Amino acid sequence: MTNEKLQEKTISTEPVFSGKVISLQIDTVELPDGTEAKREIIRHPGAVAVLAVKDGRLLLVDQYRQAMARCELEIPAGKLEKDEDPMEAAKRELQEETGYRCGKLTKLHSFYTSPGFADEIIHLYVAEDLTAGEMTPDEDEFLEVIEASFDEVQQYIAEGRIADAKTILAAYIWQLQLAQTPEQERK
Amino acid sequence: MTNEKLQEKTISTEPVFSGKVISLQIDTVELPDGTEAKREIIRHPGAVAVLAVKDGRLLLVDQYRQAMARCELEIPAGKLEKDEDPMEAAKRELQEETGYRCGKLTKLHSFYTSPGFADEIIHLYVAEDLTAGEMTPDEDEFLEVIEASFDEVQQYIAEGRIADAKTILAAYIWQLQLAQTPEQERK
Repeated sequence: MTNEKLQEKTISTEPVFSGKVISLQIDTVELPDGTEAKREIIRHPGAVAVLAVKDGRLLLVDQYRQAMARCELEIPAGKLEKDEDPMEAAKRELQEETGYRCGKLTKLHSFYTSPGFADEIIHLYVAEDLTAGEMTPDEDEFLEVIEASFDEVQQYIAEGRIADAKTILAAYIWQLQLAQTPEQERK
Repeated sequence: MTNEKLQEKTISTEPVFSGKVISLQIDTVELPDGTEAKREIIRHPGAVAVLAVKDGRLLLVDQYRQAMARCELEIPAGKLEKDEDPMEAAKRELQEETGYRCGKLTKLHSFYTSPGFADEIIHLYVAEDLTAGEMTPDEDEFLEVIEASFDEVQQYIAEGRIADAKTILAAYIWQLQLAQTPEQERK
């Protein structure tokens, strides 16, 4: 998948920071023309996100995000634990953050969120056969679950209340699914 | 936009690193239950990305990404310069990375790429009235422009050759635009 004419070769890696969620390193690379450049790189364990629609309403989680100093409405999501299977993580995060258990999970995409500086990958699943239950968020997580109709989701995006790449992507996927479903089968 | 029951209050901010592209700080916050937690936060200047379709083909840029140690096919994109207007940045990046100039740019969305740890925001535009010209990439940027049909884009996504959130999002937006355009008007 790598075009050799564009490839950069790593000359050295300087670890700068290693934290609970991310680590930071500075790589010195050789560019295709032989010159050197520095690349600031964030390492992340990877994450999962879940597109879950129950009775015509998208499951969203409202959560304070310190990076933006505001609450964000996002689809349920969370970091992979060490050696965790992404599909198991998706089931776990859906249950922890919304209380819902799902009978069926299907992988939609895996994508990098910020390829210019981070290796974070999100595995996005669609959940079906949803059964309500108890939320069990992590001890430093304070969440509120919001179930939003298609029109409400469009309004939240227009207002900037939803302003998160994975959630806007999920909204487009939902819109295409609805466009491909005969009206009498929608629920 | 902030739900007070979920709000975290910043107690202190410790700067850890300040680089060419990103900076890293560790915030100590007070959680809604009064306990404290640490948040690892990346600051980023923000970026722009451009959905540009010329004669039925999506403009993509192939570029080596050190964070993933592979080439990524992405829509044209780049960081905002200091005090730069996002629409001007979108025009500039499209021209620098693909050579194309555009007569018309329309904002589609602004979204956060990794709200859990970074404040990076991408302003996504659709470009129209495209005129070919010379590429002028930055001195440490080595790029190849690829113009891909809708079916090729779908294949690149399926193969993981396109594995970038903003580019997959752009592909869905294009798919919806095509679904809403009568066949005889497509080009």
